[in-house]
Amino acid sequence: MITVFSTAHRLHHGSELKDGAIKPSFEAPQRAEIVLDRVQQTGLGQVLPAQEFDRTCYVAAHSERYVRFLETAWSEWAATGKTHHALPLVWPVRDLATDQEPGFIDGKLGFYAMDAGAAITPGTWDAVRGSADVALTAMEQVIDGAKGAFALCRPPGHHAAREYMGGYCYLNNAAIAAERCLSRGAERVAVLDVDFHHGNGTQNIFYDRPDVFFASIHGDPQVSYPYFSGHAHEQGAGAGVGFTANYPLAKGTAWDRYQVALKDGLGRIAAFKPAFLVVSLGVDTFEGDPISHFKLTSDDFLRMGAMIASIGIPTVFVMEGGYMVDEIGVNAVNTLQGFDGDS
Amino acid sequence: MITVFSTAHRLHHGSELKDGAIKPSFEAPQRAEIVLDRVQQTGLGQVLPAQEFDRTCYVAAHSERYVRFLETAWSEWAATGKTHHALPLVWPVRDLATDQEPGFIDGKLGFYAMDAGAAITPGTWDAVRGSADVALTAMEQVIDGAKGAFALCRPPGHHAAREYMGGYCYLNNAAIAAERCLSRGAERVAVLDVDFHHGNGTQNIFYDRPDVFFASIHGDPQVSYPYFSGHAHEQGAGAGVGFTANYPLAKGTAWDRYQVALKDGLGRIAAFKPAFLVVSLGVDTFEGDPISHFKLTSDDFLRMGAMIASIGIPTVFVMEGGYMVDEIGVNAVNTLQGFDGDS
Repeated sequence: MITVFSTAHRLHHGSELKDGAIKPSFEAPQRAEIVLDRVQQTGLGQVLPAQEFDRTCYVAAHSERYVRFLETAWSEWAATGKTHHALPLVWPVRDLATDQEPGFIDGKLGFYAMDAGAAITPGTWDAVRGSADVALTAMEQVIDGAKGAFALCRPPGHHAAREYMGGYCYLNNAAIAAERCLSRGAERVAVLDVDFHHGNGTQNIFYDRPDVFFASIHGDPQVSYPYFSGHAHEQGAGAGVGFTANYPLAKGTAWDRYQVALKDGLGRIAAFKPAFLVVSLGVDTFEGDPISHFKLTSDDFLRMGAMIASIGIPTVFVMEGGYMVDEIGVNAVNTLQGFDGDS
Repeated sequence: MITVFSTAHRLHHGSELKDGAIKPSFEAPQRAEIVLDRVQQTGLGQVLPAQEFDRTCYVAAHSERYVRFLETAWSEWAATGKTHHALPLVWPVRDLATDQEPGFIDGKLGFYAMDAGAAITPGTWDAVRGSADVALTAMEQVIDGAKGAFALCRPPGHHAAREYMGGYCYLNNAAIAAERCLSRGAERVAVLDVDFHHGNGTQNIFYDRPDVFFASIHGDPQVSYPYFSGHAHEQGAGAGVGFTANYPLAKGTAWDRYQVALKDGLGRIAAFKPAFLVVSLGVDTFEGDPISHFKLTSDDFLRMGAMIASIGIPTVFVMEGGYMVDEIGVNAVNTLQGFDGDS
């Protein structure tokens, strides 16, 4: 399987508010490098650089003003005299949800965010754009006939909604890839999110759409980030009712229970008959992950890849989370090898 | 004028996320002590301790589950092994707004918050309850016949909504005082908020009600915290349409422009014929305030007090913000002396 990679990710290493303190983000550059090393060690396949895509490809999944915000946020923040990472200070919760963009950077940061887990740094935009281009380049491979391709994206994307960032995510790489195949003529596309955390951003982008089926298997939001989405009763809205499927699973879930949800999700995706499948590949479902609490083993990722391959849909794997850096490469590449039938 | 004060406020000194860093909160214990000193130095009047009130008085302005959260948040946080201040890590923005309370403290903290500016510390609940009791005790004084009373509340309250904390605020002391006079037989009550920041919490609590008139004069939310409320077009909803009045004013506003808004707001309050008036008294409109940008002088607060007195409604002044600690006592007491006609 071809892997697409961009060195631009190295320009971004954020801070995050977690456990009541600002710390260097768990989502660190080392993550992508370790996955790349594993790709090369195992001889998974060729590694291609990302092509550059036009910003209209990003706007397909996001609002114009949100993309503009991402492009300009660091310079607006720096213009206030600050040199450290930008974080929001207030959020449009509940009745404060509004359509009116504030005029000052402190207000804009909150307006376009769901948490303080997506810091804006000097290199963030270049890394974010590079990550989206990785996903787009991988999608082109599959559109052009590959059975599968691996977008080694960093930063990840699945928490980024049409108009807000959060959870280490800025542009939604999976959604941007999905929109790309639609714009190139596909009638239907599915997104399967196997990251430990609910893909709230992807859900947000496609929630009222019947042309994109979204399935997510994740930690129960009653006790897991992002807490406010991913319940089983969330199944789409309007024309999109029935085209979102959520599988919240309990703390400590291991393969025996996990594979039941995966089989059901894949069955629904197969029935939807999409031209392409995008997999939001987080490997923080691994038993050793420091911020999650499922119990998948490295061998289980081989099984996961094989099960995904079994429905026979050309697939782009888009890297999302996974924070046990020692094993992130093994687990990500195991999934791809399982898909390729090399296991 | 009688002042009501509680030493319980000293149990709370929070942290806040501001300018991309966690810092000790600007809203510090010294603030209340300096105002108390000034009350005593100027011989404003007797200083009474707060009486204890039943929690049903707090639930009048908040939801039962939110008050329970405030009561138990520190112990739930401490049970996870942490010893430093509790802050949220993700917020229910936009489409993430939900009615489903998460089961874990990290989720609850965000569910009941609009920012990371209202930390939960070991002493927070006792201080917060004490602050509400100060407002309630002062309201009792006015119900019993005093022309005016000063609730020297700390923590402040006006950013706290029916079901979320934020901006240094937990229980909405002004709203709790307003509900108290209604429960004791008043038909109508008005709240005038002269803090530099929009009183989004008070607005939230009374937005659909015709029995509480809310007027707020504040920095334009396009460029000032809390950014997502306080626009002039926000005038109430449902049965409450026409009973909310917002006066967003430009950066650098001095008395000449300020008093025009104040006169208009007081005129609308007088026309509403409330039995009582609650003034959310923030003095961060002062020209030297470190986190605001109006240009009122200390003498202007005397004028403000006199204008409030001119409409002849028994008034409870509830202390809100003001962060230029050297002058906070002078400016708060000037307002009260202006009201009393002692200037």
